[in-house]
Amino acid sequence: MNLFEKHKPMLDSAVAANANRTFFHAFPENMKAYGEEAQVSGLASFQKAMNADFMELSQEMPLRFEGEEVSPYLQVGLGIRYPVFADKILVLNAQNVADAWRKTSVQDRAGILIESLERMSKRFFEIAYGTMHTTGQSFVMSFQASGPHAADRALETIAMGFQELTRFPETATWEKPMGKYSLMLNKKWSAVPKGISLVIGCSTFPTWNTVPGMFASLITGNPVIVKPHPKAILPIAIVIAEMQKVLAENNLPTNIIQLAVDSSKFPLAKELAQHPDVKLIDFTGNSIFGNWLETLALSGKKVFTEKAGVNSVIIDSTSNAKAMADNLAFSVSLYSGQMCTAPQNFFIPEDGIETENGTLSFDETATLITNSIEQLVDNPKMGAGVLGCIQNDATITRVLELAGSESKILMGSKTVVNAEFENARTASPIVLQVDASNSSLFTKELFGPIVLIIKTKNTKESISLAKKLATSHGAISCAAYTTSSESMETIAYEMASSFTGVSFNLTGGIFVNQNAAFSDFHVTGGNPSGNASFTDPNYVNGRFVWVGHKFA
Amino acid sequence: MNLFEKHKPMLDSAVAANANRTFFHAFPENMKAYGEEAQVSGLASFQKAMNADFMELSQEMPLRFEGEEVSPYLQVGLGIRYPVFADKILVLNAQNVADAWRKTSVQDRAGILIESLERMSKRFFEIAYGTMHTTGQSFVMSFQASGPHAADRALETIAMGFQELTRFPETATWEKPMGKYSLMLNKKWSAVPKGISLVIGCSTFPTWNTVPGMFASLITGNPVIVKPHPKAILPIAIVIAEMQKVLAENNLPTNIIQLAVDSSKFPLAKELAQHPDVKLIDFTGNSIFGNWLETLALSGKKVFTEKAGVNSVIIDSTSNAKAMADNLAFSVSLYSGQMCTAPQNFFIPEDGIETENGTLSFDETATLITNSIEQLVDNPKMGAGVLGCIQNDATITRVLELAGSESKILMGSKTVVNAEFENARTASPIVLQVDASNSSLFTKELFGPIVLIIKTKNTKESISLAKKLATSHGAISCAAYTTSSESMETIAYEMASSFTGVSFNLTGGIFVNQNAAFSDFHVTGGNPSGNASFTDPNYVNGRFVWVGHKFA
Repeated sequence: MNLFEKHKPMLDSAVAANANRTFFHAFPENMKAYGEEAQVSGLASFQKAMNADFMELSQEMPLRFEGEEVSPYLQVGLGIRYPVFADKILVLNAQNVADAWRKTSVQDRAGILIESLERMSKRFFEIAYGTMHTTGQSFVMSFQASGPHAADRALETIAMGFQELTRFPETATWEKPMGKYSLMLNKKWSAVPKGISLVIGCSTFPTWNTVPGMFASLITGNPVIVKPHPKAILPIAIVIAEMQKVLAENNLPTNIIQLAVDSSKFPLAKELAQHPDVKLIDFTGNSIFGNWLETLALSGKKVFTEKAGVNSVIIDSTSNAKAMADNLAFSVSLYSGQMCTAPQNFFIPEDGIETENGTLSFDETATLITNSIEQLVDNPKMGAGVLGCIQNDATITRVLELAGSESKILMGSKTVVNAEFENARTASPIVLQVDASNSSLFTKELFGPIVLIIKTKNTKESISLAKKLATSHGAISCAAYTTSSESMETIAYEMASSFTGVSFNLTGGIFVNQNAAFSDFHVTGGNPSGNASFTDPNYVNGRFVWVGHKFA
Repeated sequence: MNLFEKHKPMLDSAVAANANRTFFHAFPENMKAYGEEAQVSGLASFQKAMNADFMELSQEMPLRFEGEEVSPYLQVGLGIRYPVFADKILVLNAQNVADAWRKTSVQDRAGILIESLERMSKRFFEIAYGTMHTTGQSFVMSFQASGPHAADRALETIAMGFQELTRFPETATWEKPMGKYSLMLNKKWSAVPKGISLVIGCSTFPTWNTVPGMFASLITGNPVIVKPHPKAILPIAIVIAEMQKVLAENNLPTNIIQLAVDSSKFPLAKELAQHPDVKLIDFTGNSIFGNWLETLALSGKKVFTEKAGVNSVIIDSTSNAKAMADNLAFSVSLYSGQMCTAPQNFFIPEDGIETENGTLSFDETATLITNSIEQLVDNPKMGAGVLGCIQNDATITRVLELAGSESKILMGSKTVVNAEFENARTASPIVLQVDASNSSLFTKELFGPIVLIIKTKNTKESISLAKKLATSHGAISCAAYTTSSESMETIAYEMASSFTGVSFNLTGGIFVNQNAAFSDFHVTGGNPSGNASFTDPNYVNGRFVWVGHKFA
């Protein structure tokens, strides 16, 4: 049985899930599904990988070995060194294998790619420890985000790609009736890959944000070079190593997927992106570099970005004020606000909000939220686990600077003890109060555990500000609380005008930060937070070109 | 019965035709299908339109009336003046009606747009005369290209848009099993239109090249401003007037579609394109302006272009040399080479080509082709009709300059008498011989009746040159003649690498210039001849954004 046949049921399920957008996981998020021993052996593999050269890649003759990953939990370097290659060599390698992958059928590509995900799933725990000790995510989040959720998002792009690549017939006979005779042509179409694909990863979600672009480019026939963030390499290195093994087993050149490791001192992203043979670029990261990459579209490259956004919470009214506050407290605390979907700006009317117990004043609403954050942070069973660690020193600096600013501090940030890791770099959310007229602070992304509570004249102004921010500065998420169906409709319509989806009245175990594969489009691609969406049809269709030939 | 129900059968047929890509016409190309009287009354209407102000539009309070259309057949101005508006007013008008169109359901939009095409079809002959006397196309071509073929291409985009806009559910319940209970969300998706759409037309195909972008933007919910070439307004003005009537009948604001007439002296294209509220731009025309428009993508606009290409003919071998020469002669003569798909560079090996009668030397092959052109041009029943007129004086100048250049002239251009129109501006093809090493001449588009016969070392060099030209300078068509299946495969693969489709061994009544709606993707969008394709999924998906809301 070939790989396509083997994985066709999973592919079919994914295609159906993309279409109906109801709940679907191809890779279970429950750890127990992966066997009793998986976590223990995953930890052992991770520990074995530390302080050693990563030798699993089929990439030969590196210039040198390098690595600079540091565990935010241990505050020591992981000691893993990866092979480093010159940018020109990586592009040349990709160029040399482009034809082989282009000539591989869509079916075979799908089979190989899903097989690679299956192999990846055997190493979810190792990937989880690698994620935890590079990003600072909690172990559970590391497992889910870098493991099953990432694999699901990869599968989602494979399925969308497969569907688009097979939507037109490979051949057709075109017969034009001319009365007594017909004009006849045989036609043949192919989806020609655009060229070499470069995928640039970020430091906080090393597989989740990398695999969609990587698998979307691969299913559409393009060789891929993945350049991870130099501080978060191991998780994606494992995925690439597994894929290279599957390629080799199927007599395909392993350079169809390459890992391009660079360092803070000798970065490679610009060189690779500017290479004339690189035609596709995927990027997750800061807006300045993302905006620069987008200018490369003028040299005929197709660029897919997820950059920064300023996410709003519009609080108008609620039928369960405490549950609302708890839900929002969790959202801002989860991974210390280091998710691109974390809310930042809370807009609350100066006259307060209507609740199940009458009006709650502005101050009372703010206090309710800070109290919820405090309870969560101080809960020894919750705090450290939900917050995880701070990935980057710059985030700590940002929090400290805000603490010393002239803004009114409703709640200070503090270090939260992690019982398991005494050196963990932690910071609980800082909550500041800002007036709507003082927009200089809230019109930019303040990455990390930072919450701004903004007093507005009324909900109308809240909506207007949230919409304006999303339109001008981008937004990846938006939460809103209202008991009025009219307000709900207005918020939905106005935020949609700024191409931002809204989560209404979340109070239970679902949070605004979360986007589910096969159901939620992640980033709409319509506002400045990014020009691409996981996974709408543009995300795959932009990676190849339909070319039709005619034969008389 | 509402318009959607009325036109659902046509929409369904078009969706099916897009998918299976076999022969389909929704609007018959046979003139007789439109009734006995249609041509006579169409001519009468056209004559009535001449020397009068065009008063059919529902656009109020123009700045002034202007018009500068000149018939290439009569060499006199048509005397039609159109209402002229300030760019800011046009954009404001569009902005004011954007919500109304966005809120119109996809079904209702489809019904209204197809109804508009039906109304357009009632005026195909009037549109044909308008096309003939602005572009210089023959009457038959004017009828087919601006009438049924244009309407088919418009319908093609409606169908592709309809399919994409309805591919995801409007709502879904997302239920995540958590063991004893479920997490539940109601989700709702909408395809939010990008914004105001500007469609910039060209002087040679005033409806065929305009309606795809126009209808693609409309079906996806965007208000459209059409700015035709100031020398070719009438055909699209009629289409827009008809659509405005349909909108009014359906209680929708007529400014959902607007005609923006400008003049050579006071052009509006740049101002409109740069307006921050214009988010979509469609353009057919020269590469310099098209390339400039493409840079506007950096300000968040989506730009769809069809620019110039350098189209090649690769002659390797044939089993019917005369039929090949006749077919190519027709292709270069049709509308005097003023089609974007007209072949320009003929690559012939220095050792000649294999034919059914043995080897034909390079010179003999060239002579065979020039003889076929001569026969066609000198045939009183064919010549004037096939050539039509030259739309623009600059084309005549270009031919004259080449005639005076140092290149070897195999056949000169001449004026061809048109029995019906004694003042017709005509020019038969000029055929020049160029060496492959002298690339300065053949690396650019020489718009008009200009053929370059280029001597190459062998077919390998012919392919390499054709591929390089398409990659560097763009190509919209490519013809190839070969009896070797190996060569055929190589040509198909290599030209596909430059994102150019190839027509092989055309000898009968099908020509490389022709691209059929619902079957042929017109321009691939992958090489410098344009970034868009009629009608691949990108052509519609780039005009809206999927936004999902969640409700707890």
